[in-house]
Amino acid sequence: MALTTFSFPCNLLEVLALEQPTKITSLSSGFFGGADLQHPVHHKLLKGRKRPCICASISESGEYHGQRPPTPLLDTINYPIHMKNLSIQEVKQLADELRSDVIFNVSNTGGHLGSSLGVVELTVALHYVFNTPHDRILWDVGHQTYPHKILTGRRDRMPTIRQTNGLAGFTKRSESEYDSFGTGHSSTSISAALGMAVGRDLMGKENNVIAVIGDGAMTAGQAYEAMNNAGYLDSDMIVILNDNKQVSLPTANLDGPIPPVGALSSALSRLQSSRPLRELREVAKGVTKQIGGPMHNLAAKVDEYARGMISGSGSSLFEELGLYYIGPVDGHNMDDLIAILKEVKSTKTTGPVLIHVVTEKGRGYPYAEKAADKYHGVAKFDPATGKQFKSKTPTQPYTTYFAEALIAEAEVDKNIVAIHAAMGGGTGLNLFLRRFPTRCFDVGIAEQHAVTFAAGLACEGVKPFCAIYSSFLQRAYDQVIHDVDLQKLPVRFALDRAGLVGADGPTHSGSFDVTYMACLPNMVVMAPSDEAELFHMVATAAAIDDRPSCFRYPRGNGVGVQLPPGKKGVPLEVGKGRVLLEGERVALLGYGTAVQSCLAAASMLIEHGLQITVADARFCKPLDQALVRSLAKSHEVLITVEEGSIGGFGSHVAQFMALDGLLDGTTKWRPLVLPDRYIDHGSPQDQMNEAGLTPSHIAATVFNILGQAREALEIMS
Amino acid sequence: MALTTFSFPCNLLEVLALEQPTKITSLSSGFFGGADLQHPVHHKLLKGRKRPCICASISESGEYHGQRPPTPLLDTINYPIHMKNLSIQEVKQLADELRSDVIFNVSNTGGHLGSSLGVVELTVALHYVFNTPHDRILWDVGHQTYPHKILTGRRDRMPTIRQTNGLAGFTKRSESEYDSFGTGHSSTSISAALGMAVGRDLMGKENNVIAVIGDGAMTAGQAYEAMNNAGYLDSDMIVILNDNKQVSLPTANLDGPIPPVGALSSALSRLQSSRPLRELREVAKGVTKQIGGPMHNLAAKVDEYARGMISGSGSSLFEELGLYYIGPVDGHNMDDLIAILKEVKSTKTTGPVLIHVVTEKGRGYPYAEKAADKYHGVAKFDPATGKQFKSKTPTQPYTTYFAEALIAEAEVDKNIVAIHAAMGGGTGLNLFLRRFPTRCFDVGIAEQHAVTFAAGLACEGVKPFCAIYSSFLQRAYDQVIHDVDLQKLPVRFALDRAGLVGADGPTHSGSFDVTYMACLPNMVVMAPSDEAELFHMVATAAAIDDRPSCFRYPRGNGVGVQLPPGKKGVPLEVGKGRVLLEGERVALLGYGTAVQSCLAAASMLIEHGLQITVADARFCKPLDQALVRSLAKSHEVLITVEEGSIGGFGSHVAQFMALDGLLDGTTKWRPLVLPDRYIDHGSPQDQMNEAGLTPSHIAATVFNILGQAREALEIMS
Repeated sequence: MALTTFSFPCNLLEVLALEQPTKITSLSSGFFGGADLQHPVHHKLLKGRKRPCICASISESGEYHGQRPPTPLLDTINYPIHMKNLSIQEVKQLADELRSDVIFNVSNTGGHLGSSLGVVELTVALHYVFNTPHDRILWDVGHQTYPHKILTGRRDRMPTIRQTNGLAGFTKRSESEYDSFGTGHSSTSISAALGMAVGRDLMGKENNVIAVIGDGAMTAGQAYEAMNNAGYLDSDMIVILNDNKQVSLPTANLDGPIPPVGALSSALSRLQSSRPLRELREVAKGVTKQIGGPMHNLAAKVDEYARGMISGSGSSLFEELGLYYIGPVDGHNMDDLIAILKEVKSTKTTGPVLIHVVTEKGRGYPYAEKAADKYHGVAKFDPATGKQFKSKTPTQPYTTYFAEALIAEAEVDKNIVAIHAAMGGGTGLNLFLRRFPTRCFDVGIAEQHAVTFAAGLACEGVKPFCAIYSSFLQRAYDQVIHDVDLQKLPVRFALDRAGLVGADGPTHSGSFDVTYMACLPNMVVMAPSDEAELFHMVATAAAIDDRPSCFRYPRGNGVGVQLPPGKKGVPLEVGKGRVLLEGERVALLGYGTAVQSCLAAASMLIEHGLQITVADARFCKPLDQALVRSLAKSHEVLITVEEGSIGGFGSHVAQFMALDGLLDGTTKWRPLVLPDRYIDHGSPQDQMNEAGLTPSHIAATVFNILGQAREALEIMS
Repeated sequence: MALTTFSFPCNLLEVLALEQPTKITSLSSGFFGGADLQHPVHHKLLKGRKRPCICASISESGEYHGQRPPTPLLDTINYPIHMKNLSIQEVKQLADELRSDVIFNVSNTGGHLGSSLGVVELTVALHYVFNTPHDRILWDVGHQTYPHKILTGRRDRMPTIRQTNGLAGFTKRSESEYDSFGTGHSSTSISAALGMAVGRDLMGKENNVIAVIGDGAMTAGQAYEAMNNAGYLDSDMIVILNDNKQVSLPTANLDGPIPPVGALSSALSRLQSSRPLRELREVAKGVTKQIGGPMHNLAAKVDEYARGMISGSGSSLFEELGLYYIGPVDGHNMDDLIAILKEVKSTKTTGPVLIHVVTEKGRGYPYAEKAADKYHGVAKFDPATGKQFKSKTPTQPYTTYFAEALIAEAEVDKNIVAIHAAMGGGTGLNLFLRRFPTRCFDVGIAEQHAVTFAAGLACEGVKPFCAIYSSFLQRAYDQVIHDVDLQKLPVRFALDRAGLVGADGPTHSGSFDVTYMACLPNMVVMAPSDEAELFHMVATAAAIDDRPSCFRYPRGNGVGVQLPPGKKGVPLEVGKGRVLLEGERVALLGYGTAVQSCLAAASMLIEHGLQITVADARFCKPLDQALVRSLAKSHEVLITVEEGSIGGFGSHVAQFMALDGLLDGTTKWRPLVLPDRYIDHGSPQDQMNEAGLTPSHIAATVFNILGQAREALEIMS
């Protein structure tokens, strides 16, 4: 990454640049080390130089290489303020360089590539036209903000993205004042933007508020609630609908492409096709010519795009909700983007405006453009081939085991169906869809509907499995209570991504599910301690047909135990745990994958001559009271261990023990839970360390309570 | 209620009946006793008689009286099957009688009157045309189902509605097979209906599925998610939009009328006005005449109503989402309703149909029609005057105290604003609105948006108070976590209706909020033990400006303590509880209003010579660790008492005690929480008995743990 690695022939680029817009090439190859890059100097060095040439974008011509591409103009931009005096031509170049920088960075770190590439021009145009952080830009979901981060003072830290102590993969208020709202979950931006717009007016401030929301995020009810309220309050704000024809998140990483779901998708398609974009652009060009230079009299251009021109079809949904509709706009045409944003900014409108921008996910990187998932989320990859470096592991992710287990159940029970909320890849249900095309339902980003829809299915004797990430099911909590649990309907919840989730950080952490599910009277709450147990719990859930049930399992791979014969689970006795290791004095009662940490801790302790008991609770509810009683009566200390918040498994154990008199002086209880703070993104190991839930922490707890403080210190050192 | 009380001159009615549709009169006066009515015989007696005459409806002519009105036709209808051979004229009469029966019943029981009156014709038409329970009717929210309950075998139990062991005020699957889906919270019906429609198809069944949803419920995102998915899946189902021009629930019982909120309301208004209903009806009449009798060739009538006729305006929102739109239909015109429902039923459509029915809330009872809230929910009342029998109490509801407390804070801090979700009356915020018209935001039934909107406001330095019922905040749980707590934004949550709520039953019980809020790392979680404390906690929340906070308070009236001077609270020290009563051996540590029960229990115990300690925790989080430690160390037993589920206050106390070594043999801990089952609707006293949380229960627990089993038995007898 020294300057000497730049091998890009500048004069060649100069020739190519003006002819071929928007495609970029990076040459040569290299690999970012870690520490080196956290304080890189290359662009600071460059900044002092005269801008070398306007020479960024080539396309169709070159190959992609792994070496850092030359980014002479981008190297001069540390913050949006540095862009303000650029010409339109330079702004275009900046976008091209930015795209190459994103590709290069993500090839070395992995991360959300496709959506970031789709909004490169939009990001540049927004920061060019608006004055952040004074003006607020709210990026919905936030995974498309790599270009935004690069332009807002964080370029040098991009090699750390999603890593421990590095940049977050989403927007985060504590990370930068340019991140005006933190995200991770989808469809919150219009609500928050409306709050900011109303807040601005109440506080007598003057600034713009812009929510950038994808079409996929529009399937969530909250976006609709927010638009309805925005139309009513009529506050000045801008909603940019970034329409990349996904409608639902294309997390199709286990299978081929998934067609967009929801009737909204056809409305948007109609809208897009109402007048071909190409034609629209030609007309716009003609108008622009007549009225002079590209930046003169922009009103005309805006008018072209405005509702009259597209004859209203499709836009009416937004119009009904009270938003003034402009679009569709080609999201990769910088002239148009800047013209329209400037016009909207300068117009003292009286109410919310929706600008419909059409972009291409993965834009400018052929491998991404061609891929089914548009390289939505990628591992490190080779820019020259687009090939991702996925490490081979001896086991599959829990997600895959869940899908296999459910398929096995569905083979023998035709009433089993699967439901997910735009997460066919993330939940593994694309595998189920391939096997049972008519029995898998993707409802879009609409967890609330997913759960009540499942309740309706259960009313008719269908056996629904609702696969939703632990943190996403928070969005359907009322439906779980009101529509499922209260009515005792047998809906099965498969809670993927339970516990800490690594690089995605706290927005995606499944920290609270045991607490918020186990307090519900009718719910069976269980967690497998390994992948074989997951198979059994899928079978158990299939068998429980008189009430709702749920099981949680982590992000990441199985531990390598033998799978059940024929990859089909056997129903467990409901409410029965098991003892895995017989010992004395101390019993570790683990819940879910924490059982593995308990076993590892027990191994450590054996080396110190302590033979302790390890049990796998399997069920938080109904709790295996006999097991708890037996452990409590035969040990000095009972330690409950779980990767979840306070109020969950440990609390249920304590409540039972207290009422049973087991805490009245015979046994000490110690709960190990997630700490009472959010754990930032990072490697799973770092996160577990931070959480104090590693085997060493567990072993140290045992030593401490037995009065062996020295051993406790040793084991943690 | 004997037959002899019928004083209605039948021949007079006969004259009036055919001229004056849809208005009814009931004569004389009386008051229902309880047990008498649970097994009434009057309509069984009538059933054997020849139908007296077609003579139900009079209007403009008579007064309303408190005596049971004559309902000769209704008396012959126990189940919908009994309606099938009625003529249209008889069906109209049935509706009129049904309306009078609803008014008479609710005058004696209280309950949801206005919405039930609005759907009398619709209910009759649906049960006349469709074959329930084979066909599924899903009533959104469910509070408009009094006519439905009367027609489906539950007329004799109507005098018990909302009372202990009586009929539920909402639909309830366990109550009747005609209640195909249980409700209470709004906007779930389309999701559930779609699940039932898909389930029907999967199971190879053939039946109709009809969701009846109000325009107010349409503001919730879930309705939109469901319509979007329904349009995509294209399953045969019927959505009836019961448009009574409310858009948001008119729970304006503290103040005057509240205009509908949300841009959707104007869209619906436009729709209604696109062609005057009257004119439409005239045209329809003309067409009907030409094609013969009212039941011949109904297709023509449907076509009149179908989209061509209303030229698309307003209907496009539904059309965009993929629903075939029919409407608007006069919801009080039985001919039209039956004609259209029959046509839709007989047409083998291929996809979801939305029938837009316009009704008048409170229809047919002049006092309800004229009232601002259309008698949405009423106490017992005198039918003759419409005057509700509201018992005079020395104290105000907690709701009112909250509003007064917030107004006092807002008087001195201009940055304080209030937000609610279509509950201006229910939350008391209509009082705030009256004082600060520009600082109160009703976002519609849209809790998700309300919370994130508040987060956006907090970003700009505004101080939002989000007043949402405990059970309704479940619908915004993810937003509380992801948008507020994770970002540590100072949004204040006022959780009304915490704990058991009486007549509304388990859907509205605030059972889980302590559990689901206190597990969040940044949240301050508190609960006032009386109304003065509520004032202080509102002040405390206003003062906490670096993180989110919440406080819960119950349905019902204050206990009568002195209010703070000037009705303005003083901020409490965060995380500090207080000892109310010094005693020995046993400490009761109460949270929220449970403190009152603890005090009452202590009074009982004093009579038995036991002087125990009572403390008010005030905060669940941060917990007053010093207080807990001190109580634990100086008492044999610490009993935590709360009106909430497992995982809440008691669990936080136990977790701290365990980690502090306080449970290691010195002190016994006993948690008193809500039982692990749903508590049915009933009187608050009955519910507390059922929950085992009365002062007697607490006192008995103390006796039991002290080994005084005989006294424990005595106190419970």
